[in-house]
Amino acid sequence: MNQKAKIVLIGAGNVATHLGLAYKSAGYEIIQVWSKTIESARRLAKQLGVVPLTDIGKLSKDADVYVIAVKDDAVSLIVKKLALKEKLIIHTSGTVPMLLLKTASKNYGVIYPLQTFSKNRKIDFSTVPLCVEANDKNTEKRVVALARAISKNVYVISSEKRKALHLAAVFACNFSNHMYAVAEKIIKKQKLPFALLIPLIEETAAKIKTGSPVKMQTGPAIRGDKVVIKEHLRMLAGDTKAKKIYELISESIKT
Amino acid sequence: MNQKAKIVLIGAGNVATHLGLAYKSAGYEIIQVWSKTIESARRLAKQLGVVPLTDIGKLSKDADVYVIAVKDDAVSLIVKKLALKEKLIIHTSGTVPMLLLKTASKNYGVIYPLQTFSKNRKIDFSTVPLCVEANDKNTEKRVVALARAISKNVYVISSEKRKALHLAAVFACNFSNHMYAVAEKIIKKQKLPFALLIPLIEETAAKIKTGSPVKMQTGPAIRGDKVVIKEHLRMLAGDTKAKKIYELISESIKT
Repeated sequence: MNQKAKIVLIGAGNVATHLGLAYKSAGYEIIQVWSKTIESARRLAKQLGVVPLTDIGKLSKDADVYVIAVKDDAVSLIVKKLALKEKLIIHTSGTVPMLLLKTASKNYGVIYPLQTFSKNRKIDFSTVPLCVEANDKNTEKRVVALARAISKNVYVISSEKRKALHLAAVFACNFSNHMYAVAEKIIKKQKLPFALLIPLIEETAAKIKTGSPVKMQTGPAIRGDKVVIKEHLRMLAGDTKAKKIYELISESIKT
Repeated sequence: MNQKAKIVLIGAGNVATHLGLAYKSAGYEIIQVWSKTIESARRLAKQLGVVPLTDIGKLSKDADVYVIAVKDDAVSLIVKKLALKEKLIIHTSGTVPMLLLKTASKNYGVIYPLQTFSKNRKIDFSTVPLCVEANDKNTEKRVVALARAISKNVYVISSEKRKALHLAAVFACNFSNHMYAVAEKIIKKQKLPFALLIPLIEETAAKIKTGSPVKMQTGPAIRGDKVVIKEHLRMLAGDTKAKKIYELISESIKT
């Protein structure tokens, strides 16, 4: 197709917002934004210059591509309500199998952006790894082209591998962020600024570009510094959860 | 003092190396490098253009400042062997109390760099937060001046608060790095490149500059996405430790 595909965006959360803005920047026409709540639909529709929608029965039939970017457990509920025949339907979830889309159209695929999105942070979408999959070779070409229009990091990856990637991302992103949160709690108790930890956090993340994280491991657990570990556990005595996390991760680092 | 202090460096590990190079760059004269093993002493001494030393009894008496940068549990062993009278003695540990230095000299202090150091990575030392402490106001002036010579982020912080900072750093750095390591293990099983996760890890670390990590939390645990969590735990069934970590951190994120 020489002409750029017309897109309907189903969802208005963080992923939908960043994806919608990326396609708008790439010159694609987004013709509709659906969301369960009118506030979210309006907020994103305004940014994209289109009409918001909350009645899924009134989805436009004029689009070429229907992108579902909602919470994982909401994808199947939405798919059940769609009958798009031969239109291309895409979901953006890490965990939902591609085959779930089968009942909604003959042509279906996945574009899973391996990134963490927040509403108020700009992302350079061109660097976001996009994991794509499609029901056949012809659809795959279309999905890859759509993905390449907004990112230079496009990988064809099966549902099974995508699911493993999503699990890895939970550790690398969600859980490391929680480690920052526990650190913040400890620091705030001492009335010290969290900003003190920023150079350390940045360097820890930057290091992995030069070598495997296993080789980059530092700290009392990998050194086997029992005196420090014992003292840290004593200091955490008042916070059962943080103490358990300290014990379990130290144990896991050692082995 | 108008003339720059002469420094003896006790230790030749990651912290000693980065500190030594920073002082050399700042125009200080390092007159000796001691290490337990001749290989380490030689390696660093060569970089600094000085003579290596392994006999602690032969430490030069001509220096103004003696900087101990060894493993936490080795600090006290070294201090016991030193009798520096009025020379300034400094340790660089996060956890060791400043008072431990008392037996070695009348003038003592701490310069704790809140950063993770690897031998083969260059660090912009001017941005490393240095937590300093000293036995009296006069010594504090000297220690602060020494710290400011290599970093623009210098904070006077008590032994007690420094210890809490070190504990926070274990979570923010060592434990988040272990989360990367678990993620790598999952990814490698699928024969996918770890590099796929780098943009995600960088963005997760960069985000905390714009807000508290608690507010930045994303993922299945904070969304309460039980279906995904259940599936992830099923996928981790073969890795007891990773599964326990997943359960414990998800639980901790929720509350």
